[in-house]
Amino acid sequence: METPQHSKDARRAGEAHPSIGDWETCAADPQYRAAVLDLLGALAYGELSAFERLAEDAKLAPSLEDKAALAGMAAAEFHHYQQLHDRLVGIGADATEAMQPFAEPLDAFHRMTAPADWPEGLVKAYVGDSIAADFYREVAARLDDDTRSLVLAVMSDTGHAEFAVEKVRQAIEAEPRIAGRLALWGRRLMGEALSQAQRVVAERDALSNLLIGGTEVRGFDLVEVGKMFNRITEAHTKRMAALGLAS
Amino acid sequence: METPQHSKDARRAGEAHPSIGDWETCAADPQYRAAVLDLLGALAYGELSAFERLAEDAKLAPSLEDKAALAGMAAAEFHHYQQLHDRLVGIGADATEAMQPFAEPLDAFHRMTAPADWPEGLVKAYVGDSIAADFYREVAARLDDDTRSLVLAVMSDTGHAEFAVEKVRQAIEAEPRIAGRLALWGRRLMGEALSQAQRVVAERDALSNLLIGGTEVRGFDLVEVGKMFNRITEAHTKRMAALGLAS
Repeated sequence: METPQHSKDARRAGEAHPSIGDWETCAADPQYRAAVLDLLGALAYGELSAFERLAEDAKLAPSLEDKAALAGMAAAEFHHYQQLHDRLVGIGADATEAMQPFAEPLDAFHRMTAPADWPEGLVKAYVGDSIAADFYREVAARLDDDTRSLVLAVMSDTGHAEFAVEKVRQAIEAEPRIAGRLALWGRRLMGEALSQAQRVVAERDALSNLLIGGTEVRGFDLVEVGKMFNRITEAHTKRMAALGLAS
Repeated sequence: METPQHSKDARRAGEAHPSIGDWETCAADPQYRAAVLDLLGALAYGELSAFERLAEDAKLAPSLEDKAALAGMAAAEFHHYQQLHDRLVGIGADATEAMQPFAEPLDAFHRMTAPADWPEGLVKAYVGDSIAADFYREVAARLDDDTRSLVLAVMSDTGHAEFAVEKVRQAIEAEPRIAGRLALWGRRLMGEALSQAQRVVAERDALSNLLIGGTEVRGFDLVEVGKMFNRITEAHTKRMAALGLAS
């Protein structure tokens, strides 16, 4: 999704690298193959769990229109899940097995960040969607052409950002005192997201190598991972400011 | 949805009547127009609330595959909702206003029948989907051609029935003692559905007239409504027996 708030750094990361070939060529390297299976598994479970959370948050909607809007976003996430699932099956992977390692970290993130009300749910949808888009953009550049097209397709706008931004602004205008609570909430979301992401990075070597520099990098480069997390955090900070929330 | 368990009566009701004309012609009668707005509003809210319940029940799924299957059904219900919503807007209605009268009865039905576990959720999905299909079939015959095409399109199979039947049979085979509890559960679902339906029929005159004999019938014919409910109950009884559950 393309919003003005996305940082230049994150955007550059997605465009600066030349093609590394198609899936057939790249998948000959077992470490690359393992990394892409991890990536698609993580994204697929992420979409399925985004579906669940949006459907859950739809209950907090103050009106039937808002409820339907969130349900529509949930349905869009499900279709992304379906595409990722089908690709996993298409390249001969067991989709469930590929998703399983990411179920617990993602479930933990959602458990720790259950929104208490409608504005918290909106901020979470916005922040979550934007961090996911930044992450996809970071990783897209390091992927073979086929996997990259898929990743860019599933990061296509589901309408979260615009809807959430507009509704959060309205909510703050109507009741300015909630801004402080929502700013804290945004910080907590980012903190929990980073802590679960670091857990995944520490546990999944192939995926981490892919994230920090492609298959040529062996070993775990903490500095590069830190830089990526920093870029994503900076983009988050700018978006929260644009929303009228100090981060 | 076409399953062998659908009663002949219910099927006949959907096929026996000749065309009454297209929407433009029929909508000239304000009572017919009001009845169709009610019907589309009820169906739209029904689909939106089916979306919510399926998404909620997905949490009870014992495996990632089952969770994804339910999420997919929920997404399909959302697309039905979208079609009904768009039609309401297309014929100049306020979709929210059309849905509103049915929100409380449908919410009450779901509140009274929250499944306690995965097999109860499956039986509810199956029973609910089948009753809805019977009801659509009863009503389709009394509709103008345009509204009928839409109603038949949104009653198209979302895959609930086959999936639920297979899984419920597996669950009973694995643990035969749950059959008694599930049979009671099926009876309770039907009871609650009828009680909410009767409430709607009593409150919505235009819709009730449409259900029991088209626009030419004025006044509230309790005998005809009773017959329709009987046909739907009989079809339900046969389906529960086919599932290995006494009703």
